[in-house]
Amino acid sequence: MTPATRGTNEDQLRALLDERVQAVHDRDARELTSACAPDIVSFDALPLLRRLGAAAVRARAEDWLGLDDGPVGYEMRDLRIIAGEDTVFASFLNRVSGTMTNGAAVDMWLRSTLCLRQSDGAWVIVHEHTSVPFDAESGQAALDLAP
Amino acid sequence: MTPATRGTNEDQLRALLDERVQAVHDRDARELTSACAPDIVSFDALPLLRRLGAAAVRARAEDWLGLDDGPVGYEMRDLRIIAGEDTVFASFLNRVSGTMTNGAAVDMWLRSTLCLRQSDGAWVIVHEHTSVPFDAESGQAALDLAP
Repeated sequence: MTPATRGTNEDQLRALLDERVQAVHDRDARELTSACAPDIVSFDALPLLRRLGAAAVRARAEDWLGLDDGPVGYEMRDLRIIAGEDTVFASFLNRVSGTMTNGAAVDMWLRSTLCLRQSDGAWVIVHEHTSVPFDAESGQAALDLAP
Repeated sequence: MTPATRGTNEDQLRALLDERVQAVHDRDARELTSACAPDIVSFDALPLLRRLGAAAVRARAEDWLGLDDGPVGYEMRDLRIIAGEDTVFASFLNRVSGTMTNGAAVDMWLRSTLCLRQSDGAWVIVHEHTSVPFDAESGQAALDLAP
């Protein structure tokens, strides 16, 4: 894609997000993490506290998508994009649904933040943060919330 | 502060973060949320899934800091700042420690992401995301992780 046909930063980010939804659906960890910067800092919904680097993020995606049987739903809602000149970030709620290889059904809402910057004419993800809140009384993750 | 004395975007963000650490220490919810944009989107460590607007974020900060007795520790570690021209974001681990009014001690590590943009010459926080990961087997929030 030449610069002249790229559209706005926000358009480009929406296209990248659509590709990620498709990659999750297809359980394609390589495609899902193809836009990760080599030095990405990832705060994931599951431990560790953080992961450093694209290889660690890809390994986590392979673990996740390897536990599912069949297509994985990855609905995005309340997407908000703040597009600067050279940095962009997006926040959204996402509903992950599907069936695991052990037969268990998954259907939960998470919150996601993505931060990107331009590198050699392409957008790369330099930071991602995905989580659910937890109940302070019980210490349980709040897996049954919905927008 | 005049533009000529502002320093770099990264310097400005570091100063803002230092002010937030001090505000938590002082249990000053108003100061802590003084840089929040009116339309901030907040993904907090405790439910709801999200909060919209500075008033909701301030009310949550008042609830939090009102449960503490004495100064609150808010150590920041592994701060990473990506500073664009007009948008900036920061990710870091933060250790929250102190004693609650019921006598219980708190000492835990969280992950935080802040996204800011320039508005009338000042930086405002348009998005924040704070969380801990959870254990997929037990469903418990992982409150005992440390970097």
